[in-house]
Amino acid sequence: MLDNPSHADGARVLADLHALRNIGAYNTGVHKPTFSEPHIRSLQWLAERLPEAGLVAGIDGIGNVLGTSSKSGPKLLAGSHLESQNFAGWLDGPLGVVYALEAARVLNPDSGVNGAVEVASWCDEEGHFGSFLGSRSYVGGVSEEEIDAARDRTSGKPMREALRDAGLAGRPRVTAERGRHIGYLEAHIEQGQTLEGGKLAIGVVTSIVGIWQYRISFTGEQNHAGTTRMNARKDAGLALARFCVDIDDRFPAVSGPRTVWTTGRITLDPGAPSIIPGAAEMLFQIRDDDPRVIARLEDFLRQMAAEFTTRGGCTVAVERIRIGAPAMMDATFQQAIEAASKTLAGGKSLRMPSAAGHDAQILSTIMPAGMLFVPSIGGISHHWTENTADADIVTGAQVFVDACRRLLAR
Amino acid sequence: MLDNPSHADGARVLADLHALRNIGAYNTGVHKPTFSEPHIRSLQWLAERLPEAGLVAGIDGIGNVLGTSSKSGPKLLAGSHLESQNFAGWLDGPLGVVYALEAARVLNPDSGVNGAVEVASWCDEEGHFGSFLGSRSYVGGVSEEEIDAARDRTSGKPMREALRDAGLAGRPRVTAERGRHIGYLEAHIEQGQTLEGGKLAIGVVTSIVGIWQYRISFTGEQNHAGTTRMNARKDAGLALARFCVDIDDRFPAVSGPRTVWTTGRITLDPGAPSIIPGAAEMLFQIRDDDPRVIARLEDFLRQMAAEFTTRGGCTVAVERIRIGAPAMMDATFQQAIEAASKTLAGGKSLRMPSAAGHDAQILSTIMPAGMLFVPSIGGISHHWTENTADADIVTGAQVFVDACRRLLAR
Repeated sequence: MLDNPSHADGARVLADLHALRNIGAYNTGVHKPTFSEPHIRSLQWLAERLPEAGLVAGIDGIGNVLGTSSKSGPKLLAGSHLESQNFAGWLDGPLGVVYALEAARVLNPDSGVNGAVEVASWCDEEGHFGSFLGSRSYVGGVSEEEIDAARDRTSGKPMREALRDAGLAGRPRVTAERGRHIGYLEAHIEQGQTLEGGKLAIGVVTSIVGIWQYRISFTGEQNHAGTTRMNARKDAGLALARFCVDIDDRFPAVSGPRTVWTTGRITLDPGAPSIIPGAAEMLFQIRDDDPRVIARLEDFLRQMAAEFTTRGGCTVAVERIRIGAPAMMDATFQQAIEAASKTLAGGKSLRMPSAAGHDAQILSTIMPAGMLFVPSIGGISHHWTENTADADIVTGAQVFVDACRRLLAR
Repeated sequence: MLDNPSHADGARVLADLHALRNIGAYNTGVHKPTFSEPHIRSLQWLAERLPEAGLVAGIDGIGNVLGTSSKSGPKLLAGSHLESQNFAGWLDGPLGVVYALEAARVLNPDSGVNGAVEVASWCDEEGHFGSFLGSRSYVGGVSEEEIDAARDRTSGKPMREALRDAGLAGRPRVTAERGRHIGYLEAHIEQGQTLEGGKLAIGVVTSIVGIWQYRISFTGEQNHAGTTRMNARKDAGLALARFCVDIDDRFPAVSGPRTVWTTGRITLDPGAPSIIPGAAEMLFQIRDDDPRVIARLEDFLRQMAAEFTTRGGCTVAVERIRIGAPAMMDATFQQAIEAASKTLAGGKSLRMPSAAGHDAQILSTIMPAGMLFVPSIGGISHHWTENTADADIVTGAQVFVDACRRLLAR
């Protein structure tokens, strides 16, 4: 440790975040779906800033921006993402990217620091085209076939077309050089109310929740909404509604203390006002940091579906479409964040699991990884009213830069 | 009555129906949304056939095909529609148009018949762009502003654009010449199982059901599906599911013996797997031939919504977006169909209400109207497997032509 280490420049961090907020602004938030024009402009904005931190910038064939250093010594990878959910918040993603940029700007030119921070912006963390496509590509987990098949979940646009329109078609994808990094550090807004409720400044993430996702399909009998008597109907939409309510009534008895479950999308087929739906589908998600709890809930869900089908009327099918195992954050990384919080945030930190998925869970499969949270006002997330107090943003940046310094110094 | 009246030609009727089935065929049904290429071709097909019946054919500015006669004596208007629901049946609409065409072909050249049958194909009975736009335009109930605002419910394409692409932009719309017709007769498949179940050939429609349609909107709080604890959620989608189930559990105590209700479409906003829906919407429909029953159910629905909102969590708003009052069919028309059934269908007819909406309900607002049903196999409707036995199609045509003859002879 230096006696007078250089610090994060809070004003510069806020200015950068506002610059990114102005690209694709929507009310007080942003609308930057993956590969949209404002998303691409945000990537270019980052690529233009990286040389200020002594980094060579590149955008690869899946839209990851990587800033690499030729400085000798250990390398720490840091970053997050720049696209947003539709009509969502300004900090979800950009906060972690700007903190990483700031750490690189502060530490890389510092001759007292052995090694460098390298910066990454992972493409499509928000899942417009798939699940963690950018970071999974970087760890070698995305095939060309997966990209061929991927489509924008809102518009249905094929990913190949989106890559071409963004000028990224034909570029090679960059994968991790094994052994290059001592680990990966990511900062993010908490997206919950734990820190705010405890008047805390920093969350030290211990693990990232596992996410299991399901397509639950109901098959009934499509018919005319006027001429089919109520007792002759096999209404797949009504069956779906009953199943949703059943889940909500019965899951609490089987779930763990931190389990959450969500039906995010419902589709009735054909979806016309005068037709009894013959088929219906819901996207259903379970999250917990204990894989045994999730496995137990999946068994229960399948058992509920079997019971439902046995009762007659409509049939229910449960298909698991995504598994994300819980990821443990590295103990050394947790210690470094905690030590930095003691020095720069009055020790107002808390060890906590992340209930949201993050690129750090993907990076943790090939290197030690850590995460730092800052408070979210009212816990609001994935909505354009998402926000964090300026003072908390600045404290987070100072802790983040100091944690990077500590990790490089080990 | 003539002693040896000329009859419907069953083979010709079947051949015509198959010709229309071949335009826009989909499996054993058809896919002919309003103003689609196969729909327009079907209208042209009809316009080319009308001169065979001594009629002058025209397509007006809303896509109605009208065949008018210069024969002296009373005029009976007859018809139905040629577009289909998406991926639906081959007889829903075309049956009534071909019966009308056949009646005109048989009766108009017959010097023993005083007067003529005029033929109509009403545009968009299936409601791709609105509610009974073609027949409502004919009775003077559609403003230019309504057409300006109308969009295809599937593609969102503006109706003005669809009319232009179909070559209909700028054409005048034809409205009814008051006093010209003695009334309107329409044939249709039953779309239910009453006739089939009773081994009957002809349904004599007494009234057409009223349809009340509602948009029920739920407002909760959009948030992150991982970081928001179950007890902190205001999930608008789950509220909607509970409300659907509530309706299904509680409506039977308040409804009439023939009431039916349907949730045909559900939308969650924003509809992403990792976001708790902050808003949700369902299209809900109630049908009954007794307006007092519908009014009672609407009151009950609003009361349920108020209770739901009072309980806290999400708020529910009920907005009525469509009223279709029940329509009574003319007694003379019912007698004519019944008499024709006695002669040509062995009396195997039944007086019954129509649980589906039809253009006849619109025409009934300006002239006497009647409807005749033929059986539907398995009651299947609004699906491409919809069908009717050939023998029933032919019997229906014979009864229809004879009923027209009787009405003109009065």
